[in-house]
Amino acid sequence: MQPFESDVIVVGAGFAGLSAARRLCAAGRRVAVLEARDRVGGRVYTETHHGTAIDLGGQWLGPTQDRALALAKELGLATHRQHVEGHNVLHFGGKRRLFRGTVPRVDAASLAAVGWVWFRLDQLAKEVPLDAPWEAKQASEWDATTLDTFLRTHAPTEGARKLLRYAMETVFAADPADLSLLHVLFYIRSGGGLDRLLSSENGAQQDRVVGGMQRLAEALAAKLPEGTLRLSTPVRAIEHDRDGVVVRSDDAAFSGSRVIVALPPMLAGRLRYAPAMPSARDQLTQRVPQGAVIKCIAIYERAWWREEGLSGHAITDLAPAHVQFDASAPEGTPGVLLGFIEGAAAREWSDRPRGERRDAVLACFARCFGVRAGLPVHYVDKSWTEDEWSRGCYAGYFPPGVWTSSGKALRAPIGRVHWAGTETATVWNGYIEGAIRSGERAAEEVLRSER
Amino acid sequence: MQPFESDVIVVGAGFAGLSAARRLCAAGRRVAVLEARDRVGGRVYTETHHGTAIDLGGQWLGPTQDRALALAKELGLATHRQHVEGHNVLHFGGKRRLFRGTVPRVDAASLAAVGWVWFRLDQLAKEVPLDAPWEAKQASEWDATTLDTFLRTHAPTEGARKLLRYAMETVFAADPADLSLLHVLFYIRSGGGLDRLLSSENGAQQDRVVGGMQRLAEALAAKLPEGTLRLSTPVRAIEHDRDGVVVRSDDAAFSGSRVIVALPPMLAGRLRYAPAMPSARDQLTQRVPQGAVIKCIAIYERAWWREEGLSGHAITDLAPAHVQFDASAPEGTPGVLLGFIEGAAAREWSDRPRGERRDAVLACFARCFGVRAGLPVHYVDKSWTEDEWSRGCYAGYFPPGVWTSSGKALRAPIGRVHWAGTETATVWNGYIEGAIRSGERAAEEVLRSER
Repeated sequence: MQPFESDVIVVGAGFAGLSAARRLCAAGRRVAVLEARDRVGGRVYTETHHGTAIDLGGQWLGPTQDRALALAKELGLATHRQHVEGHNVLHFGGKRRLFRGTVPRVDAASLAAVGWVWFRLDQLAKEVPLDAPWEAKQASEWDATTLDTFLRTHAPTEGARKLLRYAMETVFAADPADLSLLHVLFYIRSGGGLDRLLSSENGAQQDRVVGGMQRLAEALAAKLPEGTLRLSTPVRAIEHDRDGVVVRSDDAAFSGSRVIVALPPMLAGRLRYAPAMPSARDQLTQRVPQGAVIKCIAIYERAWWREEGLSGHAITDLAPAHVQFDASAPEGTPGVLLGFIEGAAAREWSDRPRGERRDAVLACFARCFGVRAGLPVHYVDKSWTEDEWSRGCYAGYFPPGVWTSSGKALRAPIGRVHWAGTETATVWNGYIEGAIRSGERAAEEVLRSER
Repeated sequence: MQPFESDVIVVGAGFAGLSAARRLCAAGRRVAVLEARDRVGGRVYTETHHGTAIDLGGQWLGPTQDRALALAKELGLATHRQHVEGHNVLHFGGKRRLFRGTVPRVDAASLAAVGWVWFRLDQLAKEVPLDAPWEAKQASEWDATTLDTFLRTHAPTEGARKLLRYAMETVFAADPADLSLLHVLFYIRSGGGLDRLLSSENGAQQDRVVGGMQRLAEALAAKLPEGTLRLSTPVRAIEHDRDGVVVRSDDAAFSGSRVIVALPPMLAGRLRYAPAMPSARDQLTQRVPQGAVIKCIAIYERAWWREEGLSGHAITDLAPAHVQFDASAPEGTPGVLLGFIEGAAAREWSDRPRGERRDAVLACFARCFGVRAGLPVHYVDKSWTEDEWSRGCYAGYFPPGVWTSSGKALRAPIGRVHWAGTETATVWNGYIEGAIRSGERAAEEVLRSER
């Protein structure tokens, strides 16, 4: 079998892979982008239901996400603001209250505790070097502690712990028990502070692409030279030596000078390498699992909650969709409510019957927004742990002990094999912005290697 | 390509796979055992150096490891005792002291703290149900805590923490920061208590097979019907549906009614499944990484330390080989010292030059046993993280949050796909004994499924 020849092979056509390819093509390189799916975008995926774009994957952009916003502009895509007008709902302990802004009104003690933990996390995060979290002065102590232990120690009321838990679930798609405190601090700093991570206005949930986020991926792909992108081509193996690389799918081989693997570490670890990856790299890929999330969407004729003075945003201790948002297009017709099932709950509900899941989520919506919310025109959800080519979302996270003992292997190229993907980003790690930056960084690395 | 046909296909010829095959063959089933390596034994591996058997993988058996001991007896293999006569060495803080038994003499405060933690761990371990650790009353709290946090809280002196740290490293080949407290408690109970796990006399390090542990694997393999075992046949993919399974290696296909995957969860997760594994199972395989260990061996003309009244066992805070043993055959000619590099240190040293590693280990031996120990006739080591078909040892371990949210997927068959391997054992999990039991359990499961 004669291998297809290029200069650089990119594995994966998510935002990392597409951005890497774009940069390499701009520099005149022949690139092959190999994508397992029959579409681009990776963990960004838009479907149309009832005439409206439904983002079943990554959906938001926000201030300081400069590369993503610049790309959208460059490629002629409009953005609109996340709907935030009106009151948010807090449904805790069977009681329903309204609030505005990011932090809900709970009892004074809980509010104080939330404020204190928030302040501490932000403060400690500033001590984590983004390009080498393991070099933070207290790295070994922080990395030996779970976020759960930190919350138990610093948040004395149950109300505070719950609120913080749901906030963290929404950020990480993982449970506080799963997460290294060092990873949490790194991630907070990487996104520019907790306020930025958790907010809609002036935060990571501020802007959406008109027509859905997938359009940005498609626009990126459309600009690549013809023949660059090969869909439905899952990569299985990478052979690499001093002379070059050969990347194998089921029925074709692609040879080149270098390869950029633009996959989460866990999926990168499931490729076959010849020679096998060195210990440091292989052990890393064993230790950075994917988060777990089910994105749940209910569609109504119009966003009637807006007429009732509600924003569509809710936080609730009712399982399983603890955090909810308005996901309608700006005009509010149709109306769309979005709920997240995260972490252990996402694993549990992924393997349960769809009908049960739908009923449980709609019951959550109805308790927060009234019975009408339980009677949508249409319900759809996507469990990212069931998606063969992601096996989880939003991103790979670091359990305790991993940053300090395996972090150095995250970005370091192995000969002619380079690594991209949002997990390798120093800024906006875990976000679309991080993915784009990681792809551009890997492309630069490859271009530099030739000089 | 016409597939080879059998009743049951077993993936992996370690002790789990071999034991499963043995049981199935005894029940009259046609079995194909597919092994990636050119040898059987998996994480058990014996080499001969200077006329003596050197176990570079699993090497000990002990009381209550009934299935392993019975197999050795049945297959006509003799065992001998681990050498324990004489004084052990403790080299801490630049000082060298001698002690006998399992717990070294440190200052009174440290000794008390070690005793207290030891007692507490044993006591808490008794509350963990071996077949369902997630059902322990305090499971969610224990699983949200690292062992490191537990040691920091309960062991007030640095001496105590060090001792406990090295003891735990030796048991888990992982660092306290990596480990869920629930996993530690499960593991302690699974092996019958800390004393049993840590002791040579009357413990897990009591007995060795004459000629090396590999002989037991070979004896098991030799009893399988001709044609059952296929070496150098790495499995890449498993197709499974209601009618049966097809297991694919690079250039052959094997069809059968059922398949037993006798690999650690992480390696099982790197196979390709069609249809893909359900969320619960796939997320589990992302979350149970392999421990890391380098087994370091120095060979001398004879075990001269015995003449000096030393047992050859040492515990030291000198990096990198914190725990050392006499690994000579009973007669002590040649003499063999064995040191372990574990956890993060094993990852670090795996990718460093062999000569440097040798020098660092021998310096450790020399500080504990005198200059002669630095001048062996021969030095050999094996880093299990570099081994493509294990990618770590001794076993897969559970980081925080995994047992409680993914534990149920550890043994549950997925249709016609069954799981074995020491990680799935309830008794002596992580040991050769657990591997054997897991293989026998999986074989019973398959046989039962036909009734």
